Amino acid sequence: MMISVIIAGFKGKMGSTALEMVKGDSELRLVALLDPFAKEKEYDGVPVFTNKEDLQGLAADVWVDFTTPQVAYDNTRFALENGFAPVVGTTGFTQEQIKDLQDLSVRKELGGLIAPNFAIGAILLMEFAAKASKYFPDLEIIELHHDKKKDAPSGTAVKTAELIRQIRQPKQQGAADESETLAGARGAEFSGFRIHSVRLPGLVAHQEVIFGAAGEGLTLRHDSYDRSSFMSGVNLGIKEVVKRDRMVYGLEHLL
Amino acid sequence: MMISVIIAGFKGKMGSTALEMVKGDSELRLVALLDPFAKEKEYDGVPVFTNKEDLQGLAADVWVDFTTPQVAYDNTRFALENGFAPVVGTTGFTQEQIKDLQDLSVRKELGGLIAPNFAIGAILLMEFAAKASKYFPDLEIIELHHDKKKDAPSGTAVKTAELIRQIRQPKQQGAADESETLAGARGAEFSGFRIHSVRLPGLVAHQEVIFGAAGEGLTLRHDSYDRSSFMSGVNLGIKEVVKRDRMVYGLEHLL
Amino acid sequence: MMISVIIAGFKGKMGSTALEMVKGDSELRLVALLDPFAKEKEYDGVPVFTNKEDLQGLAADVWVDFTTPQVAYDNTRFALENGFAPVVGTTGFTQEQIKDLQDLSVRKELGGLIAPNFAIGAILLMEFAAKASKYFPDLEIIELHHDKKKDAPSGTAVKTAELIRQIRQPKQQGAADESETLAGARGAEFSGFRIHSVRLPGLVAHQEVIFGAAGEGLTLRHDSYDRSSFMSGVNLGIKEVVKRDRMVYGLEHLL
Amino acid sequence: MMISVIIAGFKGKMGSTALEMVKGDSELRLVALLDPFAKEKEYDGVPVFTNKEDLQGLAADVWVDFTTPQVAYDNTRFALENGFAPVVGTTGFTQEQIKDLQDLSVRKELGGLIAPNFAIGAILLMEFAAKASKYFPDLEIIELHHDKKKDAPSGTAVKTAELIRQIRQPKQQGAADESETLAGARGAEFSGFRIHSVRLPGLVAHQEVIFGAAGEGLTLRHDSYDRSSFMSGVNLGIKEVVKRDRMVYGLEHLL
Repeated sequence: MMISVIIAGFKGKMGSTALEMVKGDSELRLVALLDPFAKEKEYDGVPVFTNKEDLQGLAADVWVDFTTPQVAYDNTRFALENGFAPVVGTTGFTQEQIKDLQDLSVRKELGGLIAPNFAIGAILLMEFAAKASKYFPDLEIIELHHDKKKDAPSGTAVKTAELIRQIRQPKQQGAADESETLAGARGAEFSGFRIHSVRLPGLVAHQEVIFGAAGEGLTLRHDSYDRSSFMSGVNLGIKEVVKRDRMVYGLEHLL
Repeated sequence: MMISVIIAGFKGKMGSTALEMVKGDSELRLVALLDPFAKEKEYDGVPVFTNKEDLQGLAADVWVDFTTPQVAYDNTRFALENGFAPVVGTTGFTQEQIKDLQDLSVRKELGGLIAPNFAIGAILLMEFAAKASKYFPDLEIIELHHDKKKDAPSGTAVKTAELIRQIRQPKQQGAADESETLAGARGAEFSGFRIHSVRLPGLVAHQEVIFGAAGEGLTLRHDSYDRSSFMSGVNLGIKEVVKRDRMVYGLEHLL
Repeated sequence: MMISVIIAGFKGKMGSTALEMVKGDSELRLVALLDPFAKEKEYDGVPVFTNKEDLQGLAADVWVDFTTPQVAYDNTRFALENGFAPVVGTTGFTQEQIKDLQDLSVRKELGGLIAPNFAIGAILLMEFAAKASKYFPDLEIIELHHDKKKDAPSGTAVKTAELIRQIRQPKQQGAADESETLAGARGAEFSGFRIHSVRLPGLVAHQEVIFGAAGEGLTLRHDSYDRSSFMSGVNLGIKEVVKRDRMVYGLEHLL
Repeated sequence: MMISVIIAGFKGKMGSTALEMVKGDSELRLVALLDPFAKEKEYDGVPVFTNKEDLQGLAADVWVDFTTPQVAYDNTRFALENGFAPVVGTTGFTQEQIKDLQDLSVRKELGGLIAPNFAIGAILLMEFAAKASKYFPDLEIIELHHDKKKDAPSGTAVKTAELIRQIRQPKQQGAADESETLAGARGAEFSGFRIHSVRLPGLVAHQEVIFGAAGEGLTLRHDSYDRSSFMSGVNLGIKEVVKRDRMVYGLEHLL
């Protein structure tokens, strides 16, 4: 049984990458494309629309949405009301909007996913790091990015650190009397452990969590090179939402 | 509440390392030591025995066993019958013996652990690798050991590969028409993926599982330097078995 | 003093990347472009030619050549005869042609470079690995590439191994009685050491040389992500050939 | 031709490790041992002395010295005057003392080595890092040590940074407007680049220098696990000083 897919926002960067991904998967079938900026009437045999109302009554399983914060909420409501399970990568939903859409999905008995991050690898890294910190409370995070990045540490590093903090037994690491002969050498402190940010040309987005214990070490590393890395998460989302009967927030709930 | 501990086989390498670990943990209290080769009557204030029968009636919570295959089964039965939750690192149990001891533990409502491997880091690595292979079916294993090691790949690498095979969707990796200009370059094949064994002086025991997908990579690595790395697993075992009411085989069931 | 540069083959992939690099360096000035497939008469204010003879008499310091094996020899002769120091990335020269061009460069007292590989990082890695092998004869090479690559090991790995063989004292590594329980686990043998080839989606071109000795290890790794990595070598070539009075073969002779 | 060796300070940690190394090398022959704390008259067939004057007139090629700052200068003078090429690992020499001993070695036409660091791997890493920084001015240093270490960054990291500073074209790395949301994340600044210090149990002494450029990366890493790692440097020193006719300061001058 193939899964039939609509893509909203297919002219954007993420939307067009999703389009290629769907076309390349023999288990998925593209049935409609939506984008207010589209000029064409069809694309590679698939009908193109500029107005979502024209999609009412269409037979489709999943609504992939990479649009804008302005329309994403209305789009997702529309999808649910028309029986399309939504897979939404657009950001900017409020807590209330998410609750509202989840309630609607329950009434409609439709699966769905709103995800701020579709990189399965990054999500697995966080999950593994949090679990490992239960047994190895001594750890440091090293995140490495291109040298145009302005903020340090990265948002992913902070989120990883927060997840670890929920699991790890509190502990102040390092020698009690350690000192820096060059300020900053020991990195940023977060809840008793350290975060280090490396910035170099040629790098994209990378993160390592290093755990140490008597006589052993455990290192978890994720490397992200480009946008295509998000597509395995979108693909997984499409295939999972059709099996579910309520919407979730966060790809980790489908892993 | 402190946990009171007996150590059987305390004159051996693992047993004496366990002795130091228990003494160094303020939540544990050593109440008796057993070893047929012991000459002393007490060790650091703790009574020493050469015959397990002399321990009947002792008030203790946990029986740590690093003895020999010949006596481990009898020791573990003895522990269960006397109300001591066993934590056993001795190897060589048959399937029947394990089942037998588990049944006894259920009747006695006692927790217990028999573990062929106490390295928490190695066990976490296997568990994480198996889970990641569900989402990233393209992977290779690189294991690195000292250059005195005779067999390749390592037992841990093969066990990791077997766990991955149970989870990963079958797939033949690599280019369909790839070829080796030097035989063996692509490593050993295992169920469609590859295992590589590095042997160098200075190394101890290390393993990497590398996953690749469009635009991203995930690397999991465990480094084991010496015997002390097993003690965090023994410590965890002691603290977990007292909360349980049946024996398990494999530390992974307590993680 | 700015260095004035001609680029031959500027419509190709490497040539057009070189064009961007030259334009982006304030120490270099583009004075002419050559390509038989060019339609335009000028590009961003720089005159465009389709025939090399039209460049005779031009005032320029360096001739960058990313053309085809068919014309590269004639182009390089032409450059030397007209006083342009050549920096040539085109491949396919015979030993005789190289000798011939070097002799001409000596007579003309002009620097020049023909380089099969412009990746400074890859060249440094080879040089460092060869030097380290003098002191650490125990080593293994791991090269990692995308999973479309057909041959294993990579050409760079073999070249690295050859350079190491010239320096390293011969030695058969590993335990004398080691054996493989899965064929190929220990990788390809090359002169007593081992080469391992990893192939995974998401990877581009990477190489590690790992050295081991009693109590220590040394690891050298090069990561190559895209064509832009060659441009630092072309840039270096341009700036070095103007200081020299004979052509060299191989970027390593300018490092 | 075997090289005959005297070891001064053979009862100390380094001296006794050197003793084992010399005994294990078939190209070296131990002819005398010296230590004021020695009680024995001979060790494994080799005569033992407590007073250096008793060694006058002995036929020996090399004097290995792992003694104390108080006696090392006198010992080294004594060695040179008696025709023994010194290989000295004792620290604490003044600049004047070193010059003095070098002058004496020239008059005696004897090779010699005073080395604050015998770890060949660490020295190669510094040398390679300095050379690479000529072509890749964007770099960061990550050093990793056990969590009992009190100072950060490590002395080796600072020395590596100083060597790099002598070669690398000055440059302020990172985004001009980068900022830390957690203080210290970007590490310690040193001459426009960054140094990060990781401290974890299980680690010993490790250092990575990571270089980045458009489309590529180069990583150099040294791992030091124990004292035995110094012995390859002592071994090299012994075999090199017998070929030389003047003393050098620093093992790098013999590589």
